[in-house]
Amino acid sequence: MRRVGFDELRGRIERVMLGLGMSAERAALSARLTAETDRDGVRTHGIARLPRFAEMVRLGRIDVCAEPHLVAAFGGLERWSGSLDRGVPGPGNLAAYAAMQRAMELASVHGLGAVALGGTSHWMRAGTYGWQAADAGFAAMCWSNTLPNLPPWGASSPALGNNPLVVAIPHAQQPIVLDMAMSQFSYGTLAAYRERGQQLPVPGGYDEQGDLTHDPAAIERSQRALPIGFWKGSGLAFVLDVLAAMLAGGKATHEFDGDPLNEVGQSQIFLAVAPQSLATMSELSRIADGAVAALHAATPIVPGEPARYPGEQTLKTREESLRLGVIVEESAWDNLGRLSSA
Amino acid sequence: MRRVGFDELRGRIERVMLGLGMSAERAALSARLTAETDRDGVRTHGIARLPRFAEMVRLGRIDVCAEPHLVAAFGGLERWSGSLDRGVPGPGNLAAYAAMQRAMELASVHGLGAVALGGTSHWMRAGTYGWQAADAGFAAMCWSNTLPNLPPWGASSPALGNNPLVVAIPHAQQPIVLDMAMSQFSYGTLAAYRERGQQLPVPGGYDEQGDLTHDPAAIERSQRALPIGFWKGSGLAFVLDVLAAMLAGGKATHEFDGDPLNEVGQSQIFLAVAPQSLATMSELSRIADGAVAALHAATPIVPGEPARYPGEQTLKTREESLRLGVIVEESAWDNLGRLSSA
Repeated sequence: MRRVGFDELRGRIERVMLGLGMSAERAALSARLTAETDRDGVRTHGIARLPRFAEMVRLGRIDVCAEPHLVAAFGGLERWSGSLDRGVPGPGNLAAYAAMQRAMELASVHGLGAVALGGTSHWMRAGTYGWQAADAGFAAMCWSNTLPNLPPWGASSPALGNNPLVVAIPHAQQPIVLDMAMSQFSYGTLAAYRERGQQLPVPGGYDEQGDLTHDPAAIERSQRALPIGFWKGSGLAFVLDVLAAMLAGGKATHEFDGDPLNEVGQSQIFLAVAPQSLATMSELSRIADGAVAALHAATPIVPGEPARYPGEQTLKTREESLRLGVIVEESAWDNLGRLSSA
Repeated sequence: MRRVGFDELRGRIERVMLGLGMSAERAALSARLTAETDRDGVRTHGIARLPRFAEMVRLGRIDVCAEPHLVAAFGGLERWSGSLDRGVPGPGNLAAYAAMQRAMELASVHGLGAVALGGTSHWMRAGTYGWQAADAGFAAMCWSNTLPNLPPWGASSPALGNNPLVVAIPHAQQPIVLDMAMSQFSYGTLAAYRERGQQLPVPGGYDEQGDLTHDPAAIERSQRALPIGFWKGSGLAFVLDVLAAMLAGGKATHEFDGDPLNEVGQSQIFLAVAPQSLATMSELSRIADGAVAALHAATPIVPGEPARYPGEQTLKTREESLRLGVIVEESAWDNLGRLSSA
């Protein structure tokens, strides 16, 4: 691990994007979104993903110049395509950012708005689009489907996606942003525990005998990660997939093959709501303040460590990253160096 | 347990509602919604709840004649009150049904629509409003907050509601309807396991020593039921509460006292989306059919028992109830008899 200044990190990512042929404006936005992901401590979905992104560009599976376009519209509801319908999708994070911006424009007119984006590519960090909305004063929900990597409840073969779901609530300088996927632990997190020689803090899946286990390596072998809440997360992953595919007209989870380098065509939903169209910001803030205070007042298991609301830790990590530098893994930093000089 | 004809069950509930002073039209609707809940096998939220409802009417905490009214509107987003703002709320199921109807009307105009309903009372079965929307050809999400009955992750005192969340997808005669609350097991389910002398199939909470347990009685003693996915369900319960309270202007979870007989003022969200405004019903059905087929094709843990989609079992139970009669518990049936002759 090392700490790198935020601007240095962003600049180096920007050079990678320019080197891949992206326009200056888009490279700047893509670099900011990716650097912010590492800044916020979500290291699995920031620069760690860039080698795969660059490889997909090289293979012609992502076109850095392709932009999303409108396919169908009715009032506050729109269907967009990330351009797979024209051959090759553009970068998923730029399409997702544009989709959330458009959903907020629609919400400004209709009170709420939704963009269903199909035919796109991986959006990197899900929470990005929640922070985007909450920072602009909108409540939002968004989610994406993924390739099949999670067995449904009652089955042992992967048929669900570990679909991320985001709920964002504007709240002055402390937005509340939940960013969660449907499995208890991602495979990235399982690998990190295994490499550290640690057991999981709670059961994370099944071993090859079909028993619940805390052992990350056993789950990697069985490929039976646990959906949150067993049958409940399984059901939630399924409905998010079907609803996204229906509204976006993109792929459903079962239409992806298992190869991450082929993972294009995702279906995603971006829903924005304008709460300030119903109440004053001070009334809204008072409600959120009260809920946060009550959460903090719950009796902590560990004395002095109160329960946290979603996003609370992110803001602490962000502040520390901006003050001390962003933590990056040596291997990710080296990869970034290679990509930017390629 | 006994089986009772659906029409007999509905008729008896209707007499209870008429006896409580409800108008004929509203009594018929309330009776249908409640009978359908037992018909669909959700026995915890059908006639089993009527003694408490009748008691709240008797105590003057619910006014059977109060109707929800519009408070604020902007485009496809509306805030309604279940009438607590005028003193006493009306029956929560009737207000919720009206709210989902209104959300669908808004979606017909704007592509999507949302009603935030505050100051209401318990809506009985959450899934009711999902089936209502899906049967009418709309996709929907809805949720309610509740009194605090679930500890947040990292704490031992209840500060979250076991908020139910519904996602509904229209799909010809087989809608996909997810109806799930935020705890792994409700206290009603824990009691049922304890009474049968059974252990839970998966860990359901913590015992008084703070260890995860399959023992329902230990969780009843500790009052530390487990949120689905540990920290994830804890975060989801929190954001659903805050977002509902902000949009509806009703109570947040922390504003309820712990007494179920005082549980009025809930905040609820009803979101409807008109997918047919983006695509033909046959295109939409093809997408859902494909996802269902892929789910059914996953390798089952128990040979011959494929994974099920949310709502699949409900339709089987419904068919059986209509053919053989609705299963009701003797005690609930007796209570209903007493209420209808009161």
